[in-house]
Amino acid sequence: MSLLVGIVGAGPAGLLLGRLLQRAGIESVVFESRDRGYVERRQRAGILEQGTVDTLRAAGAAERLDREGIPHDGIDLVFDGAAHRVDFLGTTGARVWIYAQTEVVKDLVALRLGDGLPLLFDTEVHAVTDLDGRPRVHHDGGTLVCDYVVGCDGFHGVTRGLVPGPVHERAFPYSWLGILADAPPVHHELVYAHSRRGFALASMRSPSVSRLYLQVPNGESPDAWPDSRVWTELEHRLADHRPHRGPITAKSVLPMRASVAENLRNGPLFLAGDAAHIVAPTGAKGLNLAASDVTLLAAAFDQLNRTGSPALLDAYPRTALHRVWRAQHFSHFMTTTLHLAPDQSEFDTHLQLARLRHLTASRAATTALAENYTGIAL
Amino acid sequence: MSLLVGIVGAGPAGLLLGRLLQRAGIESVVFESRDRGYVERRQRAGILEQGTVDTLRAAGAAERLDREGIPHDGIDLVFDGAAHRVDFLGTTGARVWIYAQTEVVKDLVALRLGDGLPLLFDTEVHAVTDLDGRPRVHHDGGTLVCDYVVGCDGFHGVTRGLVPGPVHERAFPYSWLGILADAPPVHHELVYAHSRRGFALASMRSPSVSRLYLQVPNGESPDAWPDSRVWTELEHRLADHRPHRGPITAKSVLPMRASVAENLRNGPLFLAGDAAHIVAPTGAKGLNLAASDVTLLAAAFDQLNRTGSPALLDAYPRTALHRVWRAQHFSHFMTTTLHLAPDQSEFDTHLQLARLRHLTASRAATTALAENYTGIAL
Repeated sequence: MSLLVGIVGAGPAGLLLGRLLQRAGIESVVFESRDRGYVERRQRAGILEQGTVDTLRAAGAAERLDREGIPHDGIDLVFDGAAHRVDFLGTTGARVWIYAQTEVVKDLVALRLGDGLPLLFDTEVHAVTDLDGRPRVHHDGGTLVCDYVVGCDGFHGVTRGLVPGPVHERAFPYSWLGILADAPPVHHELVYAHSRRGFALASMRSPSVSRLYLQVPNGESPDAWPDSRVWTELEHRLADHRPHRGPITAKSVLPMRASVAENLRNGPLFLAGDAAHIVAPTGAKGLNLAASDVTLLAAAFDQLNRTGSPALLDAYPRTALHRVWRAQHFSHFMTTTLHLAPDQSEFDTHLQLARLRHLTASRAATTALAENYTGIAL
Repeated sequence: MSLLVGIVGAGPAGLLLGRLLQRAGIESVVFESRDRGYVERRQRAGILEQGTVDTLRAAGAAERLDREGIPHDGIDLVFDGAAHRVDFLGTTGARVWIYAQTEVVKDLVALRLGDGLPLLFDTEVHAVTDLDGRPRVHHDGGTLVCDYVVGCDGFHGVTRGLVPGPVHERAFPYSWLGILADAPPVHHELVYAHSRRGFALASMRSPSVSRLYLQVPNGESPDAWPDSRVWTELEHRLADHRPHRGPITAKSVLPMRASVAENLRNGPLFLAGDAAHIVAPTGAKGLNLAASDVTLLAAAFDQLNRTGSPALLDAYPRTALHRVWRAQHFSHFMTTTLHLAPDQSEFDTHLQLARLRHLTASRAATTALAENYTGIAL
C-alpha cells in the first residue's frame, strides 16, 4: 500500500515535491488557493544553484531549463566605484543558472497536468486536522484523508500556524525596488553593487529582459520612482556597468526580511519552503532552499515507503534547518555587506569596503563566497 | 647628512621603529613619559604574527623570542558545547608565536640601551611644533629639532591631536575581564569559546602562566569577580577544555573599542600603532599592526635617506590604512562572531553558530580565517 501525501501550495516547493514523489511511486494531491495563471506569473527568484538544477534534471523536469537556462560562472561585485569579478567556476567548479521561478513553475505544472495527477487550483485549504492520527485536509472541494501533509503554502499560508514553536525573525531597515524592463541585461553576469547611494543589483530573466533592483527606504512607494529616476539611479550605483534603458513593465517594492521556524513538524505535518523560512533575497537562496527542503522530504518519504524506516523523516527538521541557517547566514552576510543602513557610521562603511576588498583579493575568501552562492551540497 | 627622527613613545611601535632605523643607519631619539619598569611590565598582547616575527628577526631583535617563543599552528574554537580545531599551518603554511608584549619591549629596550642610543624615560613630550618646517619636539629635558617625528604614544598620547582629521570609532557593548594566573595553560593552543553565557578566551604567557579572559558587561568591577567565580565561569564557557586552577596574580577589566584616524600625517609628523588606531583585542591584531606600521615607516625613511625619494613616505597613510582596515574587519568579525550582545536575539545567536560551523566545515572559510589570523603579508 502506497503512501498518500497532501501538499498544500503549488509554488515551486509543492510542485517539485509532487514531482519527486511521483518519481518515487508515491501518490500526492496538490492544493492551490490561486488560479493557474496567477501562480505561473508570480515574479520571484531567478537563480538556480547547481544542486537545484541537478534535482530538476533527476526529476525529469529540466528539458526546457537545459535549453533556455543561462549558466553563469561568476558575478561582478562593484565597490570603490569599480567592478571586481568573483569567479565561481574557477574556484569551486560549480555554477548557477538563470531561469526564472515562473518558468520552473510552468514546467512543473505542465508535467503534472500532462501526467493526469491531481493539482487542484482555486482550491483553498481551510484547516488540517487529526494531527495525532491520519491527517485530514479540509479544502474547498471537501476533505482529503492522507498519511502525511506537507505545508508548502508560504509565509502567509495556513500550515505555518499549525506547527507550534518559536519563529526567529529579522527585519532589515531597507527594502528593494524591483523592476522588470524590456532591455538587454547590463552585463552577461549578475552585478551586485555597493555604493554610497545604496545597494543595486542588475540581474536578468532572459537575454532581452532585465531584472533590476535598487535599495530604497522601508515604506517607499513605487510612485516615488518614475522610470527616469530609476535609470539615473542605476547609472549612479552600477559605476562602469551602464544599464541599457528600455520599457519598464513592472515596478514594486519588496520588504527585506528573514524568518526561521524552529520547529518544522507537528506529527504528520511538515513545513517546507517559505512556510518554514524566509531569507533576504540578496543571496538568491529562497527558491533553492525550497528545492533542498523538498528533496530531503522526498528522499525521506521514499525511504519510509520502501523500507518502513522513518529515520530520514524524523531527521528532516534537523537536516533541513542546518542548511537553512547556512543560507540565512550567507544571505545576511551578502545583505549587510552590500546595503547601507540608515544609521550607518563611516566606521561601518569602512568595514564593508574592507570586507569587499578581502572577498575579491583572497582566493580563500572568494572560494568561500562561491561555495555559498553556488550552493553547498546536501 | 643622515636624517634625524624623533619618536614619541617607547612601546613596541616606538622601540621597534628605533631599532629598524638604527639598522638603516638613521638616527633617532625615543621619548617616553613613563619609567622603564612601567613600560616593561605593562600587560598587553601576547600573539605575534609570522610577519612580526620576521621583522624582529631581520632587526636582530629575536634572539630570546626564538628561544622562548611558543609557536602555535592553530586555535580551537569552542561552540555548540564542543571544541573544533582551526588549522593555520595546514591551510596557509603560516603560524603565530606566543611571546608577550612585555618581553618584546624588554628585548628592544635592552638592545637600544646596550647600543648606547638615546632612549629617554621619564621624559614627557609636551608639544611638537613647526610642522610646516623642521619639527621641534618640546620635552621635559628641552627641545629636539629633527627632520621627522613619529607619534607612537598610543591612544592617550599627545601626538594624535596634532594630526587633524576625522577619527572613526566603534564601542562594543561588552568588556573583557582579563586575568593572569600562575597555572599551566588550559590547552597547548589558544581556545576561543562561544557560549550562551558569553565569550571566553584561554591564552597563555608561558608554559606556567595562563592569560584568561571572560566577556563581562561594560562598567563591570573586577571586585564582582572573586577568584572562585572566575574559575567556575571559565569551566562553564570553555566546555571540554577544563582550566587548571592556580593563584590569580592580576585581574582587570578591559573595554572593547576600535578607532581609526583617517589621517596619519601632518607634514613631518606621522602616526603609528595605537596613536593611529585601536583594534578590539579578539583578533590579536593591535601589536602586529603597530609592527607593520613601523615596518612601512622604516622602509620609507630608508628610501628617503638613500635615494632622496619620498614616494614610500607619501604612500604610508594609504598603505598602512589598507592593512589597518583589513585588521579592523577581522577583529570585528571575530568579536561579533564570538560575543553575545546584551540585546542579542535568538536569530543573532543562530547566525553566529551558522558562521562558526561554516568556519570549521569549509576549508576555504578556515583558510580565510587562518590567513587573517596569521597575518596577511605586507
